[in-house]
Amino acid sequence: MKEINASIITIGDELLIGQTIDTNSAFIAQELNKIGIWVRKRIAVGDRKDDIVTALDEASLYSKVVIITGGLGPTADDITKPVLCDYFGSTLKVNEDVADHIREIFQKKYGQVSERNLKQAEVPANCKVLFNKRGTAPGMWFEKNEVIFISLPGVPHEMKGLIEASVIPALKELPGLPAVLHYNLLTAGVGESVIADHLQTFEDSLPPHIKLAYLPSYGNVKLRLTARGENEEELAKEIGFYFDQLKIQVKTWLVTDSELPMQDVISQILVDRKQTLATAESCTGGFIAHLITSKAGSSAIFSGSVVAYSNDIKTSLLEVDSKIIEDHGAVSEQTVRAMASGILKQTGSDYAIATSGIMGPGGGTMEKPVGTVWIAAGNKQNLVATKFHFRFDRKRNIEMTAQAALNLLRIFMVNEE
Amino acid sequence: MKEINASIITIGDELLIGQTIDTNSAFIAQELNKIGIWVRKRIAVGDRKDDIVTALDEASLYSKVVIITGGLGPTADDITKPVLCDYFGSTLKVNEDVADHIREIFQKKYGQVSERNLKQAEVPANCKVLFNKRGTAPGMWFEKNEVIFISLPGVPHEMKGLIEASVIPALKELPGLPAVLHYNLLTAGVGESVIADHLQTFEDSLPPHIKLAYLPSYGNVKLRLTARGENEEELAKEIGFYFDQLKIQVKTWLVTDSELPMQDVISQILVDRKQTLATAESCTGGFIAHLITSKAGSSAIFSGSVVAYSNDIKTSLLEVDSKIIEDHGAVSEQTVRAMASGILKQTGSDYAIATSGIMGPGGGTMEKPVGTVWIAAGNKQNLVATKFHFRFDRKRNIEMTAQAALNLLRIFMVNEE
Repeated sequence: MKEINASIITIGDELLIGQTIDTNSAFIAQELNKIGIWVRKRIAVGDRKDDIVTALDEASLYSKVVIITGGLGPTADDITKPVLCDYFGSTLKVNEDVADHIREIFQKKYGQVSERNLKQAEVPANCKVLFNKRGTAPGMWFEKNEVIFISLPGVPHEMKGLIEASVIPALKELPGLPAVLHYNLLTAGVGESVIADHLQTFEDSLPPHIKLAYLPSYGNVKLRLTARGENEEELAKEIGFYFDQLKIQVKTWLVTDSELPMQDVISQILVDRKQTLATAESCTGGFIAHLITSKAGSSAIFSGSVVAYSNDIKTSLLEVDSKIIEDHGAVSEQTVRAMASGILKQTGSDYAIATSGIMGPGGGTMEKPVGTVWIAAGNKQNLVATKFHFRFDRKRNIEMTAQAALNLLRIFMVNEE
Repeated sequence: MKEINASIITIGDELLIGQTIDTNSAFIAQELNKIGIWVRKRIAVGDRKDDIVTALDEASLYSKVVIITGGLGPTADDITKPVLCDYFGSTLKVNEDVADHIREIFQKKYGQVSERNLKQAEVPANCKVLFNKRGTAPGMWFEKNEVIFISLPGVPHEMKGLIEASVIPALKELPGLPAVLHYNLLTAGVGESVIADHLQTFEDSLPPHIKLAYLPSYGNVKLRLTARGENEEELAKEIGFYFDQLKIQVKTWLVTDSELPMQDVISQILVDRKQTLATAESCTGGFIAHLITSKAGSSAIFSGSVVAYSNDIKTSLLEVDSKIIEDHGAVSEQTVRAMASGILKQTGSDYAIATSGIMGPGGGTMEKPVGTVWIAAGNKQNLVATKFHFRFDRKRNIEMTAQAALNLLRIFMVNEE
């Protein structure tokens, strides 16, 4: 099978000194993958001419498509554009459409436009300009020795706009793209190595063009089947067969056979049932509410949350009896049950989640070490509560607690059916 | 000046299909940078022997240190260890210390240990083992043709533990490391190009071994001066001089001359004043509470939050007069002021932030388009309220709103002094 390979080059000293986390490459890789272009390599280099040129040379050796991001901003540390101009043997020239667009943006925002802003309208004369609706630096499309080079701004929002509106539609037209299908499912409550042992026989039964991958995150493990072939229809049938087998194999731990994250699975159940959720969060500090409300349309299924970080708020806003906290502590089954009952009463929601724990690094005791968490979930009729022990850093403990809490509620809701 | 270069190679198909965002490289780059090792290049390749070998060959051409992460997990798609074993001309051998550690972990957690788990104790016979306290896959240190190769597991928590406990202490001993100093400051309320225009003359006055970089994020711009030299003491004096000048240049927008993010600057002011904060969040959905509580010790300065996603909760838990919402809408100056007053009253906190807006993609109207946000901040005596317009996607609008809200409170608190 023919394979069209791509490379992604990200440019900028901020990537090499680690001040910026590169989220662009992952987005670009996903989008390319969907149309059957396989990313062979990703390279990050600094704002240094020699290294940029070497990366372009190397990438073009084994890639039909090279996507470059970064280094097109308005500030002086950016050298990408002159390097590209040189590499493709051209000269910089103002593009009038881009210049008009820049004038419009800055006139509107600041009432004036500077020379520095207008310089962004200069592009190598031999490139095809990809118009950037969301910002000032345009994308640029070059071809050299049958390799396509596409340069995009590094600002994620602008890069995404260009990928979706210009890059993918154009690359889709390349002849000879294979069919690639990814089928994903999400499991919770089981570790990567246990699930891998369990799936050994299944994995050995897969044909060579279908691969299984394990993607663990925050206590959940995502499983992905990837199939590549010539004929999309046949491929869909084949991967569908194996995917059904896989679902049966992991049914005890299966959260969803879609690409939805845990929080969106819960939201979907609530949307389907026309019901609502509220959270009473101590140790998760609003993170569960944030996960739920990150999805558009969440106002239909999410009433709100009380982030009861202090015990006073647990007693005042959630009406937890202060004697419960005195007798059992803020991190206890009794307290999370009372918090869940309190938020159900205060908000009139159908379901509630409550969390209380010690996220670290301080605050642990012999009896309740760092990572001890109590979670309650349920409705007015019934609540379940479970104790967990996480052993990571604060950030990860918060994320693990949120996922465990959402999973506890999910199991509760599924068991109701 | 001599320069010790490093390369970072990350291995895993999940990086190339974009299912995982690589945060490891940024962390490793930061830690290397602090000890004067400059990362020249970062490369990501798939689980494919040829590509891993090519990446190792290339990296060793221009780097004294090559750090490899990923591909050491327990599942079958991992091929890094056999490839490394082959590359360094060795054979796999069980390391007994690591085997004992794996037995202990799995016995404790599952009451048994599998063959698959124990396979992680196999390491190439000629490597130095870096013991992984946080997980099962050990780090490995190789030397070949005067280049150091260090292989680490890809799980961020485990990789970090090994970098901090083993890798950095050992690399620090390399002869000839230069002094590198980074001085950072954070600005808010001004765009990258405006600040760059303003700093043109200052930037031109910098000597060649001191560089200024602009790092925009969520409406704030971080500025970083980096100096490299032989003598750390002299270098500190020199960069200190330019940093003082820089602070004067940007004083109107200066948030902090430290590396703290906005939320930690606020926390620090509150710690110093022994005062507390509470938030009443509609459109930010708990994200501000999450930012504040992500920092250890936040319980001393953060009372809690009401995430009032529905109007009912605005009226019940925050005691916003329903007539205010009827007359002016949920996204209005009057509503956010009432929300802020409500949360101050309910929690007894010293300060409050309230947010209400339309984050998109739906919910906008002609009068109040997507991105319209009202924010209030202040205390019992006085509240300020400001309207903002953000024009990004939902995720970014939430992040920008949170940063703008924190900055509004910060300015309020600073002006009180």
